[in-house]
Amino acid sequence: MLQSQLFTKTSKDTPKDEVSRNAQLLVRAGFIKKEMAGVYSYLPLGLRVLRKIETIIRDEMNKIGGQEILMPVFHPKENWEKTGRWDTMDDLYKVVDKSAREIALGATHEEIVVPLAKQFISSYKDLPLYTYQIQNKFRMELRAKSGILRGREFMMKDLYSFHIDEKDLDTYYEKAILAYKNIFHSAGIGEKTFLTFASGGSFSKYSHEFQTLADAGEDIIHICDPCNIAINEEIIEEQNECPICGGSNFRKEKAIETGNIFKLKTKFSAPFDLSYKDEKGDNHLVIMGCYGIGLGRLMGAVTEVLADKKGLVWPKAIAPFSVHILSLNQDGEALKIYNALTEKGIEVLLDDRDLRAGEKFADADLIGIPIRVVVSPKSLDAGGVEVRRRNEDESRIISAQALMGFVEE
Amino acid sequence: MLQSQLFTKTSKDTPKDEVSRNAQLLVRAGFIKKEMAGVYSYLPLGLRVLRKIETIIRDEMNKIGGQEILMPVFHPKENWEKTGRWDTMDDLYKVVDKSAREIALGATHEEIVVPLAKQFISSYKDLPLYTYQIQNKFRMELRAKSGILRGREFMMKDLYSFHIDEKDLDTYYEKAILAYKNIFHSAGIGEKTFLTFASGGSFSKYSHEFQTLADAGEDIIHICDPCNIAINEEIIEEQNECPICGGSNFRKEKAIETGNIFKLKTKFSAPFDLSYKDEKGDNHLVIMGCYGIGLGRLMGAVTEVLADKKGLVWPKAIAPFSVHILSLNQDGEALKIYNALTEKGIEVLLDDRDLRAGEKFADADLIGIPIRVVVSPKSLDAGGVEVRRRNEDESRIISAQALMGFVEE
Repeated sequence: MLQSQLFTKTSKDTPKDEVSRNAQLLVRAGFIKKEMAGVYSYLPLGLRVLRKIETIIRDEMNKIGGQEILMPVFHPKENWEKTGRWDTMDDLYKVVDKSAREIALGATHEEIVVPLAKQFISSYKDLPLYTYQIQNKFRMELRAKSGILRGREFMMKDLYSFHIDEKDLDTYYEKAILAYKNIFHSAGIGEKTFLTFASGGSFSKYSHEFQTLADAGEDIIHICDPCNIAINEEIIEEQNECPICGGSNFRKEKAIETGNIFKLKTKFSAPFDLSYKDEKGDNHLVIMGCYGIGLGRLMGAVTEVLADKKGLVWPKAIAPFSVHILSLNQDGEALKIYNALTEKGIEVLLDDRDLRAGEKFADADLIGIPIRVVVSPKSLDAGGVEVRRRNEDESRIISAQALMGFVEE
Repeated sequence: MLQSQLFTKTSKDTPKDEVSRNAQLLVRAGFIKKEMAGVYSYLPLGLRVLRKIETIIRDEMNKIGGQEILMPVFHPKENWEKTGRWDTMDDLYKVVDKSAREIALGATHEEIVVPLAKQFISSYKDLPLYTYQIQNKFRMELRAKSGILRGREFMMKDLYSFHIDEKDLDTYYEKAILAYKNIFHSAGIGEKTFLTFASGGSFSKYSHEFQTLADAGEDIIHICDPCNIAINEEIIEEQNECPICGGSNFRKEKAIETGNIFKLKTKFSAPFDLSYKDEKGDNHLVIMGCYGIGLGRLMGAVTEVLADKKGLVWPKAIAPFSVHILSLNQDGEALKIYNALTEKGIEVLLDDRDLRAGEKFADADLIGIPIRVVVSPKSLDAGGVEVRRRNEDESRIISAQALMGFVEE
C-alpha cells in the first residue's frame, strides 16, 4: 500500500486521556481510536494486526478440531436465569426491548452454546464436540484504563468442548494448552508467556491462565523456572508448592492474563440438562471445557512487551505489513522495489509522502513494521538500499537484488 | 470435510416458530439456529456462506478504494445527541452503564465515522476518503418474522465516502453502483436485482436501493424493463416516469431490499463540523455518501430466490462447499475422490455417515451444495461416479478422471 493513500496519520502528541502505554502508542501510530473508555475503533493498520491474530488463532482452533460458528451478542434473559447468572454476574449489560423484554449482551457464551449443543447431542456417538467463535463481548468494567487490554467491548475467541467423561476432557485440555502455546509463540510473546495455575472456582481444583510478563500487568504470578509454569498470586497461599516438581522456589513477576482455560465439567450442562445416552442407554451429563483468548488483549500485550521508546515493534506474523519502504526523493526506484516485493506476495507499505526524511524515520519507528528499507540517493550511490530490522539497531546497505533474501530470512 | 465430523444435523420438521421460508430452510438444514426473534446463531455451514459473502463484498469495496476499519457497537450518547438522533431514532437500543451513563448500540455508524474522519481530514489534500467496516448492527424491530432478512442483530457492511464537492461524490456513487452490481452477480442474484430509485429524505432527491425480486419481499417496486431500473412504490406517485427514459410503462413486483446507498451530502458533516480547507484556505463542509449491504439479508435473499421444494440451492461462489460426495457403501473409493479434489483446493463435503441412501439424497438436496457426486456400487459398475448439479434435474455417469473437469466447468 502507498502510505500517501492511507487515510490515517501519526501524531507526535501522547493522547491526554490515555494512561496505558499500549493505547498511547497505538493511538499515536494511528492503529486505534478511542470512542469512549474501554471502547475503541480499529483503524486500517490496527485492523490488519487484529485480522492476523484472528487467522493465527483460527488455524490453531481448526487444528484441534474446532468447528467455527458465530453466536449473537443478544442473549435471551431466560437462558441467563437458568444458570442463575442473570442476577449474580455483576458486569452483565442488559438492554430493554420495545416490548419491555430484557436482553443480555453476551459477556460470555455458555448460556447460548450449551442449548445450541443440546440440539445436536443425544448419544455418546455425538461426542466429543468442539466449537468456537470469534465475536464481540461486553462487560461492564468500572476501571477501563488499560487501553485495549481491558475493554467494555472486546473481541474474543471462545472455544467450548463437550465430552463423555473427565478423562476425555483432560486429554483435550492438554491439546488446547499446546494450541495456546503455539498461538503465543506465533504472536511473538511465547517466551514471556507462562501457563499459570489459578483458582478453579467451585467446580474444579484449578483453572489455567496464560500470563505474559509485562510491567503493565494487573496480575502477580509466581514462576517456577525449572518447570516453566507459574502460580497466580490469588492461590499462592493454599498452593505454595509447584504442582509439577513440588518445589517452592518462585520468581515473582507482574503479568497480563492473555488467555484462560477452564474445566467446566457439569457446571453448565447441569442447568440445561445437556446429557447423552451411553451404549447401554443410560443418561449422563455432558462434561465441558472452555477456552478463551481476547484478540485485542493479545494485541495490547504484544505492544506492551515489545514496544520500545521509539514506538511499536511488531513480530513478522502479526505486523500490519512485512516491509516499510521509505522513499527519500527516489519515488521511481522505490516503486520498482515495491512492485517487485508485492508481486512475490510480500505486504509492503511504501512511504511516498512528501515529507522530510526525519519525519519518515520517526513514523517508521512509531508504526513498527519489522523491516525498514530506505531508498535514497545516498543508498543508491552506496550500491543499493539501506535495510534495518525494527528490533535491531544496525542498518546496512544491500543490493536491490539481495533484498528478497533479506526479507524472507 | 467429512460429514460424520460435522456437528450439526438436518431436521425433517419445519420449525414451528418460523414463518419465513429462508429461516425454515436454513434452520432445517442446520445453517442457523434461532436464539430469539430476529437473533440467530450461524452454525458451521451457515458461517461458511456468510464468510464467502463477506469476502465478495470486501473485495469489491477494496477495488473502489475502501479502507477497512472496525468501529464499535457501543456509541457515546453525546455523538447521537449531536445529530439529534438520540431522541428521534425510534429503533435505537440504549444501555445504561454502572455509572448511569447511557450508551447507544450502533444501529448505523455515521455518529462514529464522522468524528473519526474529522481526526484525519483538514485539507482538500486529505480527500477523497473511503472507509468501510463489516460489523454487527442492532435495531429494535417490532416485527422480526422474516428470518435472517430482518434481524434485531445483523451483520452489515457500511462504507462511507468523503468528498470535496457533489461532483466528486456523484462520480464515486456511480462506481459504488457498479461494485454493488458485481456483488449481486457474484452472489447469484444479479439478474433478479434492480437498481431502484427511492426516497432521498430531506437531504437528497433520491436514494437508491438494490431490490431483489422475491415473493418474500416486503417492498413493491415498479420496473422499467428497457432501462433495467425500478422505482420504489413509496415514491411512485411523485415519480411516475422512469428517470432514465421518461417512460411510464412499469412492471410491478414484490422485492427484498438487499442494499441501499445514499448521498448524505452535508447531513452528517454539518453537525460535527467536518470541514476542509481548499487551496485558497477557505473552509467548506465535507460532502458524504454512504453505502450499506446486509450480509445476512443477502444470504436470506439468495435462499428465498434460489431454493426449491427440496431445499437450498447455493450458487458456486457462496456455497458452503463446492462438491458434495455421497458414499453409498463405498467409503474407500469416495475417500480417494475426496482426497483428489481437496488436494486441488476444491472444498468438498463427504457424506460418510452410516445412513440409508434415501436420507443422504434428501440431505444433499436440503443442504444445496452445487454439485452432488454419488459413489455407489452401481455407479462404479457403470464406469465411474454419478454427478448432478443441484439446479438441474438430470444426473449422469462420468469417470473419476473426468470429475475435475466437470467440477471446474
